[in-house]
Amino acid sequence: MPQPVFIASDHRGFSLKNKLKLEHPDFIDLGPSELNPNDDYNDSANAVAKKVLETPGSKGILICGSAIGVSIQANRHKGVRAAVVSDLDSAIKTREHNDANILCLSSDKISDSKDPLESEKALEDVSAVVNAFLETDFSNEPRHVRRIKKLDEEL
Amino acid sequence: MPQPVFIASDHRGFSLKNKLKLEHPDFIDLGPSELNPNDDYNDSANAVAKKVLETPGSKGILICGSAIGVSIQANRHKGVRAAVVSDLDSAIKTREHNDANILCLSSDKISDSKDPLESEKALEDVSAVVNAFLETDFSNEPRHVRRIKKLDEEL
Repeated sequence: MPQPVFIASDHRGFSLKNKLKLEHPDFIDLGPSELNPNDDYNDSANAVAKKVLETPGSKGILICGSAIGVSIQANRHKGVRAAVVSDLDSAIKTREHNDANILCLSSDKISDSKDPLESEKALEDVSAVVNAFLETDFSNEPRHVRRIKKLDEEL
Repeated sequence: MPQPVFIASDHRGFSLKNKLKLEHPDFIDLGPSELNPNDDYNDSANAVAKKVLETPGSKGILICGSAIGVSIQANRHKGVRAAVVSDLDSAIKTREHNDANILCLSSDKISDSKDPLESEKALEDVSAVVNAFLETDFSNEPRHVRRIKKLDEEL
């Protein structure tokens, strides 16, 4: 069975979310279903965090302008490891080292450029990041396991 | 009075921490004081998060290999807004939009390259990110204030 993947965005990530869904019709879209310029990244982040925590073996994808707002909100949830990633190498390493379960993407890095070739290249790069994140396994090395456990200790 | 800035790293961020301290001798170094290849990013992140929360008007800087480990750990603390930043524009925006109080830097982006000019350029870029983060004020716009408040609501 393929892993369930939950995706959500705020208004600034809405367009990129729709583009990624065209490539991945299996993604489970937690919203928004239409553009609302007044929505808050917090609500999308909490929705994906809760679903990922209650669905074993699932992953999440969150998109806002910078990826930072959604990452702060998602990481408020114990058990969530939400990674701000903008390149392929980081996508692979955060799965291997952090067992990251939510990928946070910045829509600002996908310029809606006037140059269609530039836009297409930017979308290809993001698609490669998404695929690497979904396909890379956690290394399970003891030092990484130790650090992941510490993330959920009492503060 | 200048704002107190707390800095800490894990072993992979140790070298970059020392370089930044040369430029900013006023930074308050929370460790490590010597390289320990077995330390965990969690401990540096918790130390800086706690100091930033108990010191009004202060900021923090955290460094690990990818910036992701320290960011997840720091964002477990309510009141912390830890931003993974790798470029100048994001450093400015995360201050203006998120009122980020901890900057998370990746030492992997600072290659200890064989080419000294390349290393020097990479360090200059990181220094510019640090300075922009420390010098940019929060916008105080109502929509950003609303989202920041939501970050610390009960989940």
